Formats: sequence, C-alpha cells, structure tokens
Amino acid sequence: MSKDQIVIGVDIGGTNTNIGIVDFNNNILLENSFLTNPEQGADSFAQSLSRHINKSYSKYKNDSVLEGIGIAAPGANYQNGIIESPANLKWGNVKFIELMKKHFQVPLALINDANAAALGELQFGSAKGMNNFIVLTLGTGLGTGIVVDGHLLYGENGYAGELGHAIIEKNGRQCNCGKQGCLETYVSASGIKRTVLNLLCNSNEPSEFRNMDFESITGKIISELGNNNDPIAVKAYNFTGEILGIALSNLVTFFDPKAIILSGGLVEAGNLLLRPTFTTFERYLLNIYKGKVKIIKSEMMNGKSAVLGAGSFIRENISEGINVI
Amino acid sequence: MSKDQIVIGVDIGGTNTNIGIVDFNNNILLENSFLTNPEQGADSFAQSLSRHINKSYSKYKNDSVLEGIGIAAPGANYQNGIIESPANLKWGNVKFIELMKKHFQVPLALINDANAAALGELQFGSAKGMNNFIVLTLGTGLGTGIVVDGHLLYGENGYAGELGHAIIEKNGRQCNCGKQGCLETYVSASGIKRTVLNLLCNSNEPSEFRNMDFESITGKIISELGNNNDPIAVKAYNFTGEILGIALSNLVTFFDPKAIILSGGLVEAGNLLLRPTFTTFERYLLNIYKGKVKIIKSEMMNGKSAVLGAGSFIRENISEGINVI
Repeated sequence: MSKDQIVIGVDIGGTNTNIGIVDFNNNILLENSFLTNPEQGADSFAQSLSRHINKSYSKYKNDSVLEGIGIAAPGANYQNGIIESPANLKWGNVKFIELMKKHFQVPLALINDANAAALGELQFGSAKGMNNFIVLTLGTGLGTGIVVDGHLLYGENGYAGELGHAIIEKNGRQCNCGKQGCLETYVSASGIKRTVLNLLCNSNEPSEFRNMDFESITGKIISELGNNNDPIAVKAYNFTGEILGIALSNLVTFFDPKAIILSGGLVEAGNLLLRPTFTTFERYLLNIYKGKVKIIKSEMMNGKSAVLGAGSFIRENISEGINVI
Repeated sequence: MSKDQIVIGVDIGGTNTNIGIVDFNNNILLENSFLTNPEQGADSFAQSLSRHINKSYSKYKNDSVLEGIGIAAPGANYQNGIIESPANLKWGNVKFIELMKKHFQVPLALINDANAAALGELQFGSAKGMNNFIVLTLGTGLGTGIVVDGHLLYGENGYAGELGHAIIEKNGRQCNCGKQGCLETYVSASGIKRTVLNLLCNSNEPSEFRNMDFESITGKIISELGNNNDPIAVKAYNFTGEILGIALSNLVTFFDPKAIILSGGLVEAGNLLLRPTFTTFERYLLNIYKGKVKIIKSEMMNGKSAVLGAGSFIRENISEGINVI
C-alpha cells in the first residue's frame, strides 16, 4: 500500500497558532492549537512550533510521507521567507524559514496569513469560482487577502493588503506598528477590547465589564455579554460594526469585488457584529455598486481557511517547483 | 502617398473637455478644449462634442484616415458604453456611445477617465515600464486608475478605482454622489474651494478671497494667491495636502505600488500642495513600505495623459477587434 502524501499547514496568529495535518484530498486529518506567546521571541517560538508540529505529526509518521510545511503569518513575505515587522508579534525582521530549517528537512514555504485565508476560501470555501474577492481576517490584528482576476494580489514588494494599517482616525489609537489610528486598533479582537474600555469611561451604564480586569477580557467574553444584552458589549459591537461597514464600503470603491468574506475570531460574534456592519455598509455604498457585492461570513471555522490555504500553497509550490526556499 | 492613420482622444471632465488629434506615432497633432457645461444635459453635450471634434478634425480630413474615437469620462464603463451616474456630470446613466454613433460612423470606445490617464502614463509618461502603479486625477473630482501586474484593474463590474468616493469623514461634506464625506469633496479642485470657504469662516485672517464671490474662485486663483502667500490659500493647500498624504499612505497599504502619479488641475499648484502631501505621506507610511514607493507629479500637461490614453485605447481595441461597441 502506498503511503499517504500529507502536508502541514500552520497559521501563526498574535494569540493562537493553529496546525493542521492535511491529506492529499485536502481534508484536515488533525488540528492542533497552542498559545503563540510572542513575547518569548522568534527563536524560542520556532522551537515551540517545531515541537507541536512533531507531536501532531507523530501519529501519522509511519503511514504517510510529509511533503512539506506551509506557514502562514502576519507580515510574511513568500519571496524571501522573512516575517517582516509583524505588528502583533513584535519580532522585527525574522528569517523564519531559515529558523524552521534547523528543525525540518522537508520543503517549507511562508505566506501572508490573510493571503493563505484567501487561498483557503478560493479553493475550499465561500469564494469558490470567484475571480475578484477580498478576505478580511479579524483576529488579534486585521489582515487582508485580495484576489484580482483570479490571482492573489502581491503588489510590487509582496506587501499588498495591509489594510489593517490604513489610517481611519488621524491622531487616533496607538498601534503596535508605531502609527496612530490604524483600522486594526478599532476593528479586531484587540480593538473591540479597547472600545469596551472607552465606553466604560464615557458612560455610567452598569456592565459586567466593570468587575473585570482588562487583560482577562477576551473576544469570547465580549460576545457572551453581548448575547446577554450587556449594554456596553452591545454598544461595542455597534461601534465596531459601523467602522467596519464604512471600511468595507470604501474597499469596494477600490476593488469592485464580487464579495468580501469576513473571517476570524471577531466575526464569531455573528449578528452582534454583522447587523451594524451590514446596515452601515449599505448606507455608505456608492450607488453603482448596489446589489452587486456580497458581504459573507466565512463558513470555515476560525483559522481553518488559513491552515488549508497554507497547506495548498506549499503543495502548489512543490508541484510547480518554484518559490520553495 | 498613403494617408496618415489618426485617432481622436477625448477627455470629458466636470469643467473642461479636451480633444486631441493623435497620429500613428502617438504625437498629439492638435489639442482643443471647451467648457463641458454639464447642465445642458448629455444629448446636448454630445452634439456640442461632435461639433468640436469635427472642427478639430477638419484641418486633417483630406490628408488622413480617422480610425476611431476613444472617449474618456468619469463613471465610464468600457464594457457597455455607458456613462453611469457620474457625480460631477449629474447625467444619471447615459448610453454615451449610442449617442455619439448618431454623429460618427467610425469605431468608438468609452474608457474611465482615470484609467485613460493611467494608460497614458504607462505608455508615454512617468509610469513607463512599471507593473504596479496608481494614477490619481485631481480635477473637478478625484479619479483613480490602478495598474496591477501590468494590467488595468477593472474589478468585477468595471468599476474599480472609485477612490474619490471613499468616505474619509463620517457625516462630512455633502458629495454630488449622494453620500457625505467622500475624499473628492476635500481633495480636488472643487474640494479646495470648499476648504477656502471653511477657512474664511473659521479664521479672522485677512485674505483676498474675502472680496470674491465663491463661484468666481478657480483652482488657478487659489494657486496664484498661494504663491503670493495669502494665508488662507496657503492653509487650504496644507489642509488638502495633509488629507491627500494620508489617503496616499492608505493606498499603499492596499496595493503596494511602485509609484503613485498625481495629475490634474489641483496638482498644477506644485509644491504648495506637494510639500504638505509628501510630509504627511512619509509620516503615516507603514515602515515596510518606506523607501519603496515614489509619489510623482505627472510630467504630462493637464489632461494630456487621458487624451493620449483614450487614443491608445481605441487604437488597441481596433487592432484586437474587441470591445468596440
């Protein structure tokens, strides 16, 4: 019996890192998640990631061949294998493929996390058959994967789609990138936490948040309190959805896409976020686009699109014999 | 002797319409300009345009063959020959190619004005040899022509690049498109006029503008007063340049272009506008792009890039035998 040909897809996030063992038919055989803990630094993280990969893979080692590992990360540049100045990892420039080569002898490839999510949606998700669409990953940060005429948009240096660092408020919230007022300081899992604080400051309304310390608040807690009609949580989603709605209507004026797909932890709140987003989006959408563009909540579970996209990226690179560093 | 093969390029603007007779070597043999006067309606404008074209062409009629006419306009859709809801013409949807066919039997093609400017810059201007660049036309409105991987970005319905209608100020200035706070209500020849009014309202500084009625103020006058250090004119350029600088730094986060080329009437003010634009752009540019993207003032005289682009568009369409309606 011939052995299964598998690849491993990795999605490094500011909070969690997901690992998936992906078979030849693009089924995820096993998923694994661990805390990224970026404060440990890139070297230590690479060791930790390697341990987790080996642990996940051990079960399949005897019956399969590991073809390669595709790694999705914010600020990743597929051309040179470097993770460059990722705002939510704070590692500076890291030759990440070089680091991982110390641990693995199989082909490795790096891909921007939102681009991986876009590939995942294109091949296995809501964007099947679409030529022009955009994926927003709303996690610790805000990533953007853009597909134009059926191809990922890389731009001149491989850095297209850093929409999370578009300025939406001059002199606004301080961002990990060093600037102020970036979209992701408002529209992301970490952004909505800051909005909760701001609302607690500006209103006298009772809220369960008043008994919590900031660090303990998670996206999940905000969403739970929102579903329990906590007024601060509901207002935080309304505020976030309104900013997201305007950002999406602006995105359409740039790209005229067929759809924008929303994924990531923040979107798990469902209608709490999506209702104000849709209302604002429709209100600000330029007439010529009305009825022509869909906003879709990703059907793939949190992180799955990027893991599958990273897996398909390394598989494609191997079969084409290019870009494997 | 064989006759010259010429095309005519037209650029319909909210204020002026430019006509160019373009020879086979892409030299503009003759340029002509007239007031668009959009209030007369599309039918009457088409008649007026036809008269001006015939007048310009009459000189060359005996010695040349007119191959076709390329027409650049805001809101133009090359796929169906319709000018759709152009904010600064207020015509609603106009089957413009159909209108023009009453007057001309040669092939006609419609192209978005900023896309025509981008084609002009790509083939004859500052963008020669570039694969990823963006042209902003800052006239009565703000148009955007985007080139990605060497090709014009059309999007799903042919409407990519309507950046002029991205919202930069919630509940901001009323726009001709029906929305509020669109970029072009601030950054355009008409936008800076509104800024002058706002500055006159908010300050007590002396200014020559205080003796003018609003309708009589033109971009040229603002630029002249700016060069004479009129404090309101200088502040108007600073305000406009700051908004433009942020918009450009945001554009880079979307597209990662090699260059952004600024053209159109507003840019004729030169450093009055460009100095605050560059300063703000550099300040807000995300680190990974620093030193990698150029902001360039178009070297082509006002309107020339769109006229040449429209001419080259119809010529290309004829030679490929496609999209000629």
